[in-house]
Amino acid sequence: MKLIKNSAKRLVPEKVNNQKQIPFKGIGKFKPKGNKAKPPIKTCADYPADGNKVVKNLKEALKRAGLKDGMTISTHHHLRNGDVLTNYLFDVIKEMGVKNIRWFPTASFPCHQHLIKYLDDGTIHHIEGSMNGPLGRYTSEGKMKGVGVLRSHGGRYQSIQDGEVHIDIAVIAAPTADPFGNATGDRGKSACGLLGFALADSEYADNVIIVTDNLVPFPCYPWQIQGNNVDYVVEIDSLGDPAKIVSGTTEVTKSPDRLLIAEYVAQFLEDSGIMKNGFSFQAGAGGTNLAFAVYLKEKMKKKGVKARFIRGGSTKYLVEMLEEGLTDYILDGQTFDLEGIRSMRENPNHVNTSPFTSYNYHGKGNFASIVDAVVLGATEVDLNFNANVVTHSDGYLLHGIGGWQNCLFSKCTILAIPSFRDRIPVIVDEVTTLVGPGELIDVIVTERGIAINPKRKDLLKAVKNSNLPIKSIKEIYNEVTELCGGVPKKPKVNKNKVVAIVKWVDGTLLDSVFQVER
Amino acid sequence: MKLIKNSAKRLVPEKVNNQKQIPFKGIGKFKPKGNKAKPPIKTCADYPADGNKVVKNLKEALKRAGLKDGMTISTHHHLRNGDVLTNYLFDVIKEMGVKNIRWFPTASFPCHQHLIKYLDDGTIHHIEGSMNGPLGRYTSEGKMKGVGVLRSHGGRYQSIQDGEVHIDIAVIAAPTADPFGNATGDRGKSACGLLGFALADSEYADNVIIVTDNLVPFPCYPWQIQGNNVDYVVEIDSLGDPAKIVSGTTEVTKSPDRLLIAEYVAQFLEDSGIMKNGFSFQAGAGGTNLAFAVYLKEKMKKKGVKARFIRGGSTKYLVEMLEEGLTDYILDGQTFDLEGIRSMRENPNHVNTSPFTSYNYHGKGNFASIVDAVVLGATEVDLNFNANVVTHSDGYLLHGIGGWQNCLFSKCTILAIPSFRDRIPVIVDEVTTLVGPGELIDVIVTERGIAINPKRKDLLKAVKNSNLPIKSIKEIYNEVTELCGGVPKKPKVNKNKVVAIVKWVDGTLLDSVFQVER
Repeated sequence: MKLIKNSAKRLVPEKVNNQKQIPFKGIGKFKPKGNKAKPPIKTCADYPADGNKVVKNLKEALKRAGLKDGMTISTHHHLRNGDVLTNYLFDVIKEMGVKNIRWFPTASFPCHQHLIKYLDDGTIHHIEGSMNGPLGRYTSEGKMKGVGVLRSHGGRYQSIQDGEVHIDIAVIAAPTADPFGNATGDRGKSACGLLGFALADSEYADNVIIVTDNLVPFPCYPWQIQGNNVDYVVEIDSLGDPAKIVSGTTEVTKSPDRLLIAEYVAQFLEDSGIMKNGFSFQAGAGGTNLAFAVYLKEKMKKKGVKARFIRGGSTKYLVEMLEEGLTDYILDGQTFDLEGIRSMRENPNHVNTSPFTSYNYHGKGNFASIVDAVVLGATEVDLNFNANVVTHSDGYLLHGIGGWQNCLFSKCTILAIPSFRDRIPVIVDEVTTLVGPGELIDVIVTERGIAINPKRKDLLKAVKNSNLPIKSIKEIYNEVTELCGGVPKKPKVNKNKVVAIVKWVDGTLLDSVFQVER
Repeated sequence: MKLIKNSAKRLVPEKVNNQKQIPFKGIGKFKPKGNKAKPPIKTCADYPADGNKVVKNLKEALKRAGLKDGMTISTHHHLRNGDVLTNYLFDVIKEMGVKNIRWFPTASFPCHQHLIKYLDDGTIHHIEGSMNGPLGRYTSEGKMKGVGVLRSHGGRYQSIQDGEVHIDIAVIAAPTADPFGNATGDRGKSACGLLGFALADSEYADNVIIVTDNLVPFPCYPWQIQGNNVDYVVEIDSLGDPAKIVSGTTEVTKSPDRLLIAEYVAQFLEDSGIMKNGFSFQAGAGGTNLAFAVYLKEKMKKKGVKARFIRGGSTKYLVEMLEEGLTDYILDGQTFDLEGIRSMRENPNHVNTSPFTSYNYHGKGNFASIVDAVVLGATEVDLNFNANVVTHSDGYLLHGIGGWQNCLFSKCTILAIPSFRDRIPVIVDEVTTLVGPGELIDVIVTERGIAINPKRKDLLKAVKNSNLPIKSIKEIYNEVTELCGGVPKKPKVNKNKVVAIVKWVDGTLLDSVFQVER
């Protein structure tokens, strides 16, 4: 495998899984040529006139879809750690004796540990999608036959739209669907909220199979997935474990350090003037982010400020803000708890979005860059504000990218992170894996102080007279390095063996993940 | 122009406007090969990061879109006869000195008479879309430089999707929009209901311009048109005349003959057993159709029958049925009155649809064939149940096809028509123009009796013991021919000069419209 240095000075392979790659060229520098993918033209003459596309079981649907060795099969992760369908899908594929599948999920979860045996026996060739937990360890140790490909949610849409990834068969778990294939995630016993991550799959895959445990008469509305893109519908008993699909309720952090970070972030939004009438923000569903939302809400109420929109991942905390009139809209990408799902189902101002609307970099703009402030996490940040979110300092794959890279385009990108975890500094000389270039990262908020990217002179000026503990990133680095007794040990990796690559939002290669030597 | 006979035995040109054509091969017989159109890949790097795509005026937007001679410009007809924008658009194009535009509207209205001077002076080369009223006369008299192309709503979607028609610039009138280009028709002073007819244009055109007279802060929701597909946004004072965009209210017919037809249709649905719990139907907004809906509603109430869905064009009559619990959903394609718009805006069960969901024949099925019964009109029907909806017996272009062809795929297609108009029989030997093949037309309901297509033995049996005046079509034909003093005169046309062609839903050529000799 020949490695070349990209414009971020990271080593990346020329080819990945026999596909030629374009190295990262800088933000906004790579200009795509060419045209979008062009699915085959179909005709109603080949589909049942009465709209009933139900076939007897998943095996039958896969057969009719022409499943064979080497195909690309996609799934979505809206069922999160409660997903039973994907494991069952590969049980069926195994039973059919089909090999070398490229599995192209929107993300994977610990529950997918079940699939390791299929990676071992050659049913699955490799995964393109996040490899976390057991799958991350498996990949990091060099056991996967192909190279893993890590993309952001927007990058995944882009890769399908641009024809980089051709999906042969999309298998879409649908908590409610009709026989025509219209499907929604906002109701049914396996309700997961929305199905936006599967949108691109439904639009571009050659064959689309809807699998549901709640078949209703036509029309299933809302039709988050449109039956006009669907080939087959399969009914099964259960898509998964509702308790693991969504939390009954999400909880804010109880850690005093994390609470302090959350408070700093909220204070930063107020003092910098970002928190004003008509503003917008996005924060995830981690405990720190939830705490931030709670603090911000109090500030907004106190100052009489109303947001125009809040981006979800939604939780009961955002729903409360919507219902109390503190925002006009929630623009939601996924729902994390039951209150989020209820609100999405009942409140027209709780709006479904998708990676197409929110994150696709190869569109005519997207929502991410319109958002005034986004609060994210990271596993590592370096002195140039470069950040990592996929590996830990030990080199192991830990997380997927999710919408993280896409969100960096916000007008103010804030990483809310502890300065160290398990006595290992989070602020480092150089990130193990580059996932977010520093020029897009504006503010680092830790429990030891807040570092503003020097290029954001406007922000530095805006908070000059605040009481916030503004420091240089080097100062925080020095403090935490001293406290932890030095910089983290470099991971022992085999620089000749790339186990996964990190794509940038435009499909270029940003960095490589190497095999960890035990 | 070389003409060949297609499988319906109608003469159609081999080439139209220099584009090779496929003659009609029979229903469901033409199997498309190849792939969908593939728009160019764009990048966010070329669009404003803050999402503000507003440019100073329409001329500036057209310039940036690279307007030049010979391009295809599309518009939609949701503003109906109140449309001011399209006329203004061509004033601007004329002012810019650009020539030979192919105008590709979703339909045209009498208000577009303004454009005749641009057809005369070469600004517009020809129209692909319905040519009614003054434009129909102009075309029928052989004055248009190119050949008109008539497509159904579904056929228009198909032609764009399949790459038959490449739109250079789509100009989309939007009663409400935000600076990113998200747009809706359900609110604003020029509210027209929905914008579904412009969906394909927004998805496939190289350049998409939103023109609005109600610019709101991001996000404009619902986003019937997605800003992610939009290049430029233009603000103008007024899109059109609200009183002509929608009726304040729609009215049922007062004609005793039409009322009788409407009553027969409703009775037919009851007696044939089609009207039962969970059924579905579609009827347009003509006076007869409205009367039918009123009669049917009474029957449903009396029998305690509830529909699963009703297809719009919606009016206050359908809205009342929704609000009184007589249907679960209205699946709406366009709204004809203020009550329809209010309901669409307020009632989540009043659902927006588009030609993609409802009518595109080159999809994985569509809604039209799922509908239990559809009630349509026609200008002529012949003894083989073939029907015409675009020309009158004098040969002049009179109507567009609209969704008419697409709706023929309903499980029971009913033409509700007077047996004669202005003393000219509507039931004829042979239709002037073939728009709907008889094998898809099941029932003809006239004031003189009901004719059931002999191939529908099931329907004949179902109403055998009813009190309905079931006759053969020949009987009705004989009665009306005698009454009117003979069959209609054949129009004087120049069989060497095709002025327009009629496409079938699959893009093949069903028939030709010839120049009328005065």
